[in-house]
Amino acid sequence: MELEKKLSKVSKRIKSSLIRELLDLKDPEMISFGGGVPDPDTFPRHEIAKIASEVIENEHRVTLQYGSTGGDNILKEQYIKLLKKHENIDNLDVDNLLITVGSQQALYLLGITFLDEESYCGVSRPIYLGAASAFQQRDPKFINVPLLEDGMDLDYLEKELEKLNKEGNIEKFKFLYVISNFHNPAGVTMGIEKRKKVVELANKYDFIIVEDDPYGALRFEGEKLPSIYSMAPERTILLNTFSKVLSPGLRLGLVVGPKDMVKRISMAKQAADLCTPALTQRIGARYLERFDLIEGIQPTIEIYREKKNLMMKLVEEKLGDIKGIKWINPEGGLFTWITLPEGFDTLEMFEIAKEEKILYIPGTAFYVDEPDNNTMRLSFCLPTKEKIKEGMDRLRKTIDRYAKEKGLEI
Amino acid sequence: MELEKKLSKVSKRIKSSLIRELLDLKDPEMISFGGGVPDPDTFPRHEIAKIASEVIENEHRVTLQYGSTGGDNILKEQYIKLLKKHENIDNLDVDNLLITVGSQQALYLLGITFLDEESYCGVSRPIYLGAASAFQQRDPKFINVPLLEDGMDLDYLEKELEKLNKEGNIEKFKFLYVISNFHNPAGVTMGIEKRKKVVELANKYDFIIVEDDPYGALRFEGEKLPSIYSMAPERTILLNTFSKVLSPGLRLGLVVGPKDMVKRISMAKQAADLCTPALTQRIGARYLERFDLIEGIQPTIEIYREKKNLMMKLVEEKLGDIKGIKWINPEGGLFTWITLPEGFDTLEMFEIAKEEKILYIPGTAFYVDEPDNNTMRLSFCLPTKEKIKEGMDRLRKTIDRYAKEKGLEI
Repeated sequence: MELEKKLSKVSKRIKSSLIRELLDLKDPEMISFGGGVPDPDTFPRHEIAKIASEVIENEHRVTLQYGSTGGDNILKEQYIKLLKKHENIDNLDVDNLLITVGSQQALYLLGITFLDEESYCGVSRPIYLGAASAFQQRDPKFINVPLLEDGMDLDYLEKELEKLNKEGNIEKFKFLYVISNFHNPAGVTMGIEKRKKVVELANKYDFIIVEDDPYGALRFEGEKLPSIYSMAPERTILLNTFSKVLSPGLRLGLVVGPKDMVKRISMAKQAADLCTPALTQRIGARYLERFDLIEGIQPTIEIYREKKNLMMKLVEEKLGDIKGIKWINPEGGLFTWITLPEGFDTLEMFEIAKEEKILYIPGTAFYVDEPDNNTMRLSFCLPTKEKIKEGMDRLRKTIDRYAKEKGLEI
Repeated sequence: MELEKKLSKVSKRIKSSLIRELLDLKDPEMISFGGGVPDPDTFPRHEIAKIASEVIENEHRVTLQYGSTGGDNILKEQYIKLLKKHENIDNLDVDNLLITVGSQQALYLLGITFLDEESYCGVSRPIYLGAASAFQQRDPKFINVPLLEDGMDLDYLEKELEKLNKEGNIEKFKFLYVISNFHNPAGVTMGIEKRKKVVELANKYDFIIVEDDPYGALRFEGEKLPSIYSMAPERTILLNTFSKVLSPGLRLGLVVGPKDMVKRISMAKQAADLCTPALTQRIGARYLERFDLIEGIQPTIEIYREKKNLMMKLVEEKLGDIKGIKWINPEGGLFTWITLPEGFDTLEMFEIAKEEKILYIPGTAFYVDEPDNNTMRLSFCLPTKEKIKEGMDRLRKTIDRYAKEKGLEI
């Protein structure tokens, strides 16, 4: 059978994720600044193991059974309390929330619910890879808004919106996708004035704001900013996840939004997988009942902060002399974003990096238009401090070798 | 914000599941022949609780972390052993398998991978509701093949295929979707000759066979038949699930098929949710290592068999005198399918059923073309024997009241 002939258009369009392929490199000598995965030793495994056993023994009629598509109400109620306590978000009930199989599913369902081929959606440039792959399934038109150090270039966005408006196409602009805190991959945080401006534009041009905030709890420095959701709950869909603050293995994502929108997204989920596992949801619920997720993550934040500071110090020391290099010093999260001089191609350079046994993510993975080939994402959360030091040396060696090979002046 | 204007075409098309809405009726007086859910007291909760605790404590670097999109290799290896032992399926390796969030996700990903609007797919009439909602997302053209007592009417299918062939459209026929054992909703099993004929047609017209077998292990009587997969592994995708034989709360579905197809389906999954929870997968893996799933389900089968026999005896006793009534006596699974005389509309009759406090699933839920309104699905797995008796009395009363109201002779 000639499979290609049987595939749908969308299947032919899907490419395998570059990141996932890179992360499959299993050389023990390799130092990885690649994945955005938390250190599993920071997960509260004893507590989770105890809760898992209890909810299977005592609540098996729920935990081992099908659940409702919208999700476990006990988990939702607990999460509503958390949002009230830590995010000052009020007036929610369970119908404002949907539990998904990780945030990736939430992004995917947003694409299904809102986007057609003729739709427009606004995204950052660079864009989070998972969002790109989810939205690309629907083949919409992207408005790629450049990221500045304090978030999206909203002047650019406004001009594009006005253009759509004049063309009579503004109704086809469905949503703006924003990672408000510690952007993946770019590390930047959207400032308060820009958050207000996003709401102003959304009101003016009547679009939905999708605020993705997987890393918000992982702030190392600077002042916590109010969420866009809190400024415009009637038109914002907030995405949260347990993956960075408790454990990715539970695959628990949360959609918070207006009830009518949440209902539509939930209807898309029904066809996609009926329901999120009842077991992992109830584990999450009982965990939230007993522990404060945000307080619990503080020791991990201490570790991340130290690693981040170390990496940024080394970026400056080891790479700072490269003419025209730029980097982001993030206030939280898992990533820094480096822009090498013009002429560098970090995907091409990756071959040398493999030889030097240092792994980063070439920036080209994070664009839905022509990529800036001279960019790369580095994560500091998983390697030890010693490996960060050694890894930065290897990275410099890689850059030097590539520059020499290509005749680039640095 | 006027939400309707923002929705995608597919979102506007999605209807909420009738079954899920009916099953939300939470009246404790109600006797339900509705859901196809196993009795949670039959789940091995002590064993699952122990394994869950162990795999979180001892394998937290796997169970609490992101997993690969294709699924946990240890689970796959265990399942390959099970398929060899109980299904006589050989020559599989881990790349032939994909782990999904329940079979529903597998069905959904099949739609994404193979179907476009101009595609054709063959389905049974009636069709499993979850498959209908998954495939309908892609808006393909359905060839609705009537179900006979020994499975699909393959003469009908062959004529339709020949028609497509003559029109030059046969390449657009992507797959035939078959529930080979104890069909949901219709209860019928496809006979061996028909299985062979399906393979013959698939070879002749070069299409994929999707064999969905969630209930195969739940055989009460009659001879176990070889799977279609075993007859044509090069063009068949077999769907299995843990939901009916271990626990639906784990949400573990399995896709078995040719490697190139499994890879494509896996790439669609990557955008949909990255990976199935590592925790539930490893619980399943370690369970399979220690226990034989198929032997473990035998006591449950005993219970189901007794309940099925009781229900079928009562169908004959209590409803047998209704002129023109037909029913299926299934050899396994969870459902019987009843066809009332012409003129009955079981969805309309449902209002009386609710008053009589008996719940069934109106057949209209199981069609993607004009429904046969006089059909209904009854499940015998969950209610006690006492409730089955009482429920059948209530059903007869419901039918009598409806017939009287409508002036139908029965």
